[in-house]
Amino acid sequence: MNQYRIAVIPGDGIGPEVMTENVRILQTVAAIDRSFSFEFQTFSWGCQYYLQTGKMMPEDGMEQLRSFDAILLGAVGYPGVPDHISLRELLLKIRHDFDEYINLRPVRLLKGAPCPLKAENTQNIDMIFVRENSEGEYSGQGAWLYKNSPQEVVIQHGVFSRKGTERVIRYAYELARKERKTLTSISKANALNYSMVFWDQIFEELGKEYPDVKTSKLLVDAAAMFMVKDPKRFQIVVTSNLFGDILTDLGAAIAGGMGLAAGANINPEHKYPSMFEPIHGSAPDIAGRGIANPLAAIWSASQLLDFLGYEEWGARIVDAIEKMLAEKHALTPDLGGSASTSECGKALAGILKQLS
Amino acid sequence: MNQYRIAVIPGDGIGPEVMTENVRILQTVAAIDRSFSFEFQTFSWGCQYYLQTGKMMPEDGMEQLRSFDAILLGAVGYPGVPDHISLRELLLKIRHDFDEYINLRPVRLLKGAPCPLKAENTQNIDMIFVRENSEGEYSGQGAWLYKNSPQEVVIQHGVFSRKGTERVIRYAYELARKERKTLTSISKANALNYSMVFWDQIFEELGKEYPDVKTSKLLVDAAAMFMVKDPKRFQIVVTSNLFGDILTDLGAAIAGGMGLAAGANINPEHKYPSMFEPIHGSAPDIAGRGIANPLAAIWSASQLLDFLGYEEWGARIVDAIEKMLAEKHALTPDLGGSASTSECGKALAGILKQLS
Ligand SMILES: CC(C)[C@H](C(=O)O)[C@@H](O)C(=O)O
Ligand SMILES: CC(C)[C@H](C(=O)O)[C@@H](O)C(=O)O
Repeated sequence: MNQYRIAVIPGDGIGPEVMTENVRILQTVAAIDRSFSFEFQTFSWGCQYYLQTGKMMPEDGMEQLRSFDAILLGAVGYPGVPDHISLRELLLKIRHDFDEYINLRPVRLLKGAPCPLKAENTQNIDMIFVRENSEGEYSGQGAWLYKNSPQEVVIQHGVFSRKGTERVIRYAYELARKERKTLTSISKANALNYSMVFWDQIFEELGKEYPDVKTSKLLVDAAAMFMVKDPKRFQIVVTSNLFGDILTDLGAAIAGGMGLAAGANINPEHKYPSMFEPIHGSAPDIAGRGIANPLAAIWSASQLLDFLGYEEWGARIVDAIEKMLAEKHALTPDLGGSASTSECGKALAGILKQLS
Repeated sequence: MNQYRIAVIPGDGIGPEVMTENVRILQTVAAIDRSFSFEFQTFSWGCQYYLQTGKMMPEDGMEQLRSFDAILLGAVGYPGVPDHISLRELLLKIRHDFDEYINLRPVRLLKGAPCPLKAENTQNIDMIFVRENSEGEYSGQGAWLYKNSPQEVVIQHGVFSRKGTERVIRYAYELARKERKTLTSISKANALNYSMVFWDQIFEELGKEYPDVKTSKLLVDAAAMFMVKDPKRFQIVVTSNLFGDILTDLGAAIAGGMGLAAGANINPEHKYPSMFEPIHGSAPDIAGRGIANPLAAIWSASQLLDFLGYEEWGARIVDAIEKMLAEKHALTPDLGGSASTSECGKALAGILKQLS
């Protein structure tokens, strides 16, 4: 029997509420399957911790996490703690220091999920974004000169290394090959004359090794347009950190909303633990009321199962979510239902039990 | 009688075709009004010129343009000329060297225009983007080290000066005050820890001078989501060069498509000529067939009239476009009609004549 040690960081706002359901689902799956099991350890880090200690996690936080097989993250951010602290010192720090250089985000419109697009544009919305997750526009490097003077100037560096660019693009080619899907690279070489010219060059270089993969290239502005005008044109998509950030939120909007959007932060070499999270925020306005939608967090649990090699279970969870949506069963208020967070999670666990 | 000298750069692909109609409309307006007139001078610069001379415009091109009251641009770009040449040496060069630091882009869904959103989301799509147009992510500065080696690294600088940031944000506050509309600033301080922290700071600083203007702030990823989920929340929007690029293409997608999207590149001090353009590309695939939609170019002519102080004429042109859409009259194939480019332009001229 395979045993997995999972670090759980519920975080802020609705994070703890959705995390309870996330853990419930993984426990349910393990109890049914019996060929693997999970051991969870919870870390109460985040903004509350920051307000008490001045840090988002302890000094040795990263070491504490290091030996786990994976991390589940709830949500980070709370009024009173500046975003660039709460995120840079927790979410972005883990992504970066654990070299989780692949951010995998499914954008798939399940039957019954709400969509702001006209019905004729909602066919076959089923793509996977491979977002660069370690460098690029998010390098965090820059300069700030002549503060508060008229000649003040602030520079933000987008840093694209060959290693960093090759590995994410190669990952996307491999995924497209494995799934026999088309690969779209999204960049902006006509304006970003260093970084994106380089990106395009690497995309073409590597393409020679994947003659079987059908590819296309799009400018990020055109891509934003096509996400709403013709989303079915996308299958596997590879793009930079910032563009991936923007386009996957747009993707969430067309694929059921933030309550259904998940992301996996992956270190493919398994050198460090990978991290799984709903991509929504901590939603302080509804925190503590038991009405947060746990399905995005649960979808990220399905990504964890995929990652550990239990793809059948990953698929079953997504099927169960689809069943609930299609039957309008035990949905939270954001999806038009009246179920509580835990009713929603329990209903999903129930479906999984029936399936097996 | 006010006389205006207008430089016309038809450019590549469908540029010349839509430009003919653009000029037709301005001539029609001047002939009706009689209090002003236009003198057009055409410059055949662009990719064709480049293939013959190795340059997108003559050495003294900018001097030639400098004395004009305004510039009309058709479209730039053609297969065989790399984008970063055709754009950096013509479109982006003019924007930059003439200090056209405001890019004004209406995102307004006219009655009868196609929209990929469900009807319930299409109410009151009527916003104006104030896009920074001179620096930021488009500075064109960067570094490229260790080419073709494993340690190759490419850096793109986003450069935000106090002057550059203040002037665009101030422009947006003034516009919001004048039009009594809300102002939304779009940035990304949680990840871009230099440039966007600075942007937010300037937005707040200047806000103290505009206590009458209702403001809000959004992250660019959330903004992309709201553009399709709840577009009516936006009125005046101010954002950086790159974010404006992405979001206005998304805006075009929800407001009738690229055939209806116009942009004004403005030097508010009138120190240099401002430039008016459809925001679509040169569409080489349909060039020369007389089926390109001239309405985006014509909408940019309405922006020119606004800019020269003839706001009534500007509004009349947009009304005439709306009338054609609502009546499905003389529309080109992209809008479901069967009119040619010139039939569409002539029909619009006809409506303007009737109105007066
Ligand atoms: C919270 C923020 C820093 C983060 C990002 O920009 O990556 C989020 O928007 C996301 O997409 O996971
Ligand atoms: C052609 C390109 C350089 C340009 C831009 O990115 O500004 C275009 O997309 C636009 O929005 O006008």
